[in-house]
Amino acid sequence: MEPVSSSSMKVTLSAVDTYETSFTPLVVIELAQDVKEETKEWLKSRIVAKKKDGGAQLLFRPLLNKQEKETLGNKENLYLVGASGLRLLLGAEAVGLVRECTDGTMRAFTYDTRRSFRGFHDDNDDFLTMAECQFIVKHELENLRAREERMIPGYPHAKLYPGKSILRRLLTSGIVLQVFPLHDHEALRKLEDAWYTRFSLHYQPIDSIRSYFGETIALYFGFLEYFTFALIPMAIIGLPYYLFVWEDYDKYVVFASFNLTWSTVILEVWKRSCADMTYRWGTLVMKRQFEEPRPGFHGVLGVNPVTGREEPLYPSYKRQLRIYLVSLPFVCLCLYFSLYIMMIYFDLEDWALSVHQESGTEWTGVLLYVPSVIYAIVIEIMNRLYRCAAEFLTAWENHRLESAYQNHLVLKVLVFNFLNCFASLFYIAFVLKDMKLLGQSLATLLITSQVINQILESLLPYWLQKKHSMKVKRKVQALKVDMDASLYKQVLLEKEMGTYLGTFDDYLELFLQFGYVSLFSCVYPLAAAFAVLNNFTEVSSDALKMCRVFKRPFSEPSASIGVWQLAFETMSVISVVTNCALIGMSPQVNAVFPESKTELVLIVVAVEHALLALKFILAFAIPDKPRHIQVKLARLEFESLEALKQQHMKLAAESLKEEPRGGKTETGA
Amino acid sequence: MEPVSSSSMKVTLSAVDTYETSFTPLVVIELAQDVKEETKEWLKSRIVAKKKDGGAQLLFRPLLNKQEKETLGNKENLYLVGASGLRLLLGAEAVGLVRECTDGTMRAFTYDTRRSFRGFHDDNDDFLTMAECQFIVKHELENLRAREERMIPGYPHAKLYPGKSILRRLLTSGIVLQVFPLHDHEALRKLEDAWYTRFSLHYQPIDSIRSYFGETIALYFGFLEYFTFALIPMAIIGLPYYLFVWEDYDKYVVFASFNLTWSTVILEVWKRSCADMTYRWGTLVMKRQFEEPRPGFHGVLGVNPVTGREEPLYPSYKRQLRIYLVSLPFVCLCLYFSLYIMMIYFDLEDWALSVHQESGTEWTGVLLYVPSVIYAIVIEIMNRLYRCAAEFLTAWENHRLESAYQNHLVLKVLVFNFLNCFASLFYIAFVLKDMKLLGQSLATLLITSQVINQILESLLPYWLQKKHSMKVKRKVQALKVDMDASLYKQVLLEKEMGTYLGTFDDYLELFLQFGYVSLFSCVYPLAAAFAVLNNFTEVSSDALKMCRVFKRPFSEPSASIGVWQLAFETMSVISVVTNCALIGMSPQVNAVFPESKTELVLIVVAVEHALLALKFILAFAIPDKPRHIQVKLARLEFESLEALKQQHMKLAAESLKEEPRGGKTETGA
Repeated sequence: MEPVSSSSMKVTLSAVDTYETSFTPLVVIELAQDVKEETKEWLKSRIVAKKKDGGAQLLFRPLLNKQEKETLGNKENLYLVGASGLRLLLGAEAVGLVRECTDGTMRAFTYDTRRSFRGFHDDNDDFLTMAECQFIVKHELENLRAREERMIPGYPHAKLYPGKSILRRLLTSGIVLQVFPLHDHEALRKLEDAWYTRFSLHYQPIDSIRSYFGETIALYFGFLEYFTFALIPMAIIGLPYYLFVWEDYDKYVVFASFNLTWSTVILEVWKRSCADMTYRWGTLVMKRQFEEPRPGFHGVLGVNPVTGREEPLYPSYKRQLRIYLVSLPFVCLCLYFSLYIMMIYFDLEDWALSVHQESGTEWTGVLLYVPSVIYAIVIEIMNRLYRCAAEFLTAWENHRLESAYQNHLVLKVLVFNFLNCFASLFYIAFVLKDMKLLGQSLATLLITSQVINQILESLLPYWLQKKHSMKVKRKVQALKVDMDASLYKQVLLEKEMGTYLGTFDDYLELFLQFGYVSLFSCVYPLAAAFAVLNNFTEVSSDALKMCRVFKRPFSEPSASIGVWQLAFETMSVISVVTNCALIGMSPQVNAVFPESKTELVLIVVAVEHALLALKFILAFAIPDKPRHIQVKLARLEFESLEALKQQHMKLAAESLKEEPRGGKTETGA
Repeated sequence: MEPVSSSSMKVTLSAVDTYETSFTPLVVIELAQDVKEETKEWLKSRIVAKKKDGGAQLLFRPLLNKQEKETLGNKENLYLVGASGLRLLLGAEAVGLVRECTDGTMRAFTYDTRRSFRGFHDDNDDFLTMAECQFIVKHELENLRAREERMIPGYPHAKLYPGKSILRRLLTSGIVLQVFPLHDHEALRKLEDAWYTRFSLHYQPIDSIRSYFGETIALYFGFLEYFTFALIPMAIIGLPYYLFVWEDYDKYVVFASFNLTWSTVILEVWKRSCADMTYRWGTLVMKRQFEEPRPGFHGVLGVNPVTGREEPLYPSYKRQLRIYLVSLPFVCLCLYFSLYIMMIYFDLEDWALSVHQESGTEWTGVLLYVPSVIYAIVIEIMNRLYRCAAEFLTAWENHRLESAYQNHLVLKVLVFNFLNCFASLFYIAFVLKDMKLLGQSLATLLITSQVINQILESLLPYWLQKKHSMKVKRKVQALKVDMDASLYKQVLLEKEMGTYLGTFDDYLELFLQFGYVSLFSCVYPLAAAFAVLNNFTEVSSDALKMCRVFKRPFSEPSASIGVWQLAFETMSVISVVTNCALIGMSPQVNAVFPESKTELVLIVVAVEHALLALKFILAFAIPDKPRHIQVKLARLEFESLEALKQQHMKLAAESLKEEPRGGKTETGA
């Protein structure tokens, strides 16, 4: 516990408390202001305790020491968590980090073989990126488990049982307010420069995004960029259709066929380039960790049949009952309500049209657009309200795993948003059969929702954040303490930032956009162009959001965009059906078959089935992983099997040496 | 090498050669008659050599010693292979055999933990079934690899390279004629008694079939039985439709909807019961072995990027060229030819009809059925010819892996057989629109093909086999040697039996049957009943074939019916389309919509899409594995992750003990 004074200290505020020569703060833990001293001490002792004593063996210190706290009049309990270089390397092995070896293969990092990894030197601190270090610290904190404790010291109501994650219990009982990783301002500035601040045409620095924000977020930006570029051909081909009002039968069919095949191909090719990226990042071959129950999960203590541990259990049939007797009816009710709102919209539309026809002034001409805009806003509001309800319901269904929770939430939200956004378009297309209105509605909905999203998602929070930041700066400057307050300022600023809730909303936005572009593409060929324009600015506004508006999120390894791949593929199947139907209904095509409508319908249905079959054959024929990745994965598998075989061989050789001639095995325990 | 005389010897013929107290012959190797003495000696030395010297460490002896050979005037080179109990247990570990532990979990067998497995005693020879022992011996023989040898001694043209499987080279260069496992007559008799010889209603003894013939064959019989029972409801509901000629619109729709939903459900439920079975057998959790190149694969020696070994390589683009420039056009040509034959059939049909109408005697009435029967026979012949061509072409495509070869073969054969069998029915249904002719053709095709199959597949070979068996018996009885010749007789008999070529043809038959039943079910509701009847006898005739007609096949572990699941599911999707179209075309339904045909078509298409969507939702919603299997698999995974974590923890604790306070890691080589 001797204080060490070092000239290269990174933390200057509480130098007297530091007993490690180099302490890089990685993660901040904020405790409630009224937390008991006893609890603080216990938490600290558990975090710094040796691994063999069941601790996390991390470095842990308060942001301000007692004296500083009094001087500043600050009552917040803020703690910094760091780790030694060796501890981080061992943690990297525990989380199963995969890195490139000097021979070019991707392997799970182990401390024993550390020297065979590219970029590793014993005196090198850069081997792990800061995001990786933070992920490791988070993993270690979450895996800090109760041993004999039956409750959190000082809080008899916060029950523990052996094996329960301490941090999760602290979070659910409100003792720990939040845990978040710190930004690295120097790296962030570099990233921003390469990413969005300079206005020039270039690809995003996906690899840098990945090393700063982790794989999940990098994959989202990778997908956003890929998707934008993939839409460009559709936008370019669509432009002349809009400009020259090409409405011939054959041109229509060519455009629709191109769109449908194209959307299949781009989704398949994405899978391949995604595998390419995640192989390079190591997450494609990373072993899945065993999933712990999600924080909100509760139940009666019992023995889990999988882990054999005593932990809360919740019977599956009860969950099924909640899903089918409450959630499902609720979702159906919401869908009905959404359709009801839609009918009101159409009444409004009729009313506006009649007003315009009665007194055709310029003002009433503008009035024609008002119902659409109002409806688009109402749709956005309903989506957001429903989203809250869906989150509440899915949490109430009490899923054990985060992944199950996510899947149920995604399903609920997707079904509603799909209907809510597209029902009016389907109604216009297939009930009213008014193609002109369809194009107009589609344009209004698409553009309005994009504008609303850009504002609500990035610009508004950015403005609020800016204001808050000024306030903190002024407060810090007003301090009379003569010290390097940069870290103090940083923590104070970042802890008040909003929390980034994951890529869900961003993917959802893209999903709906894909729907607008593909479902009715042959009626409004300009949709793709609008989507491309929006996405170019979306990249910047999302980047701004990640870098400036929200707290830095913990990096999360992922090997693909997961359930969204399926969602986009489903959308592209539905779009085959809608586009074929639209073409079949168009007056140009109907003019070709003047006498026999039945024949027309049969031909359209046949074409639709052929296109669907083609889609499935294409999806089946294009391998999900590029050949060179397949070879590398096969090589990894071969090596692990070979190693196993070697082990068997050695064992066999040893055992057989002792074998008596008669072939009977030796007995005896 | 001292001769041991034992009273409990199982092999009595060549007792003087035996130097093991207990030698159970498991596998027979037949060498060519003119094989060189040098080669025989080398093969023997490699097979009996110790594992650490690169041998297989198996027991190996000739069926007849020199003296016996001279006495009997027998020039055949027949050898018996066996293994000691310990050797088999170590082999079981090497092949990754999974067995039930005493605590009820399924685990990979290891010799070290052998006492924790249910049914294991040190003095127990029954722990491994004979089929498992034979599989292990086969695995060890196939994994006997060349070391320094550049060729097979005595055959300079039979090149070897380090790592090449010796047995495969011996087989491809014709030095080894065949390798086959021996029957166990006592066990076979018991199995037959429980299986098919007694005529009573009972389930098949699937577990006994599995322990005698292995998982792949047991799964086929399991599927056959399941499929037969699953067809019974369709058969029962179909009967009144046929008997009372129910042809109302609504009854039609009810029947078709039931069939379509039912076929989805049975395929999903099969997946679950299949997982149930294979979990019990251990193959569901068995680790996949690394796949070696198939015997027929050839290429230029190079370094395989996956294994890093020097072995023949064949560039992928050449294979693609062969597939797309030769195989694909050939298949298309065959499809065209098949359609051409179909048109000839329709000409014949017309001719027969015209003859009957001109001179309507009883004889010409029979003549009406002749074209159908001839066509059914021609279809069977074309299927068999095409099958040979497909096998040749797929082998010529030179696939590296047996699985890739199988997939390409299955695809080729399925596409052709589907078109060949069903094209005429599609033509009748959708071009001629003659529902009566459709029902008649379907019945003729279904029944003819079933009768032909039963005869060609089982009864004819059984009769030939019986004749051959009598000949061998007479020959053995004529021998003047006074000895227990049962083993000699058995080997002589079994080596002449046909080789069972796998479950491909059996599944194909079921697949086509499923097509006849489901594609046009609403036109000929009796099809299911015929299929059920056929399958009840099919079980017996297939069982007879396995037990009496063919050589015992090597058991093969498998976890599911593989690509056939996909084939059956595809068929059930196609049947939704055909059934909806048939209903839409039926005069009863058309009578409901007398004025607007277009409306009818639209409704039919809507119903079809709804049914297809329902299918996909059902397939998605029904979990592929029953809950208790999911829990058990999760438990296994949890345990292996837990073990890994323990290992990391230990390592971390050790490394951190040495950590200096400063957090810097120690350097050094």
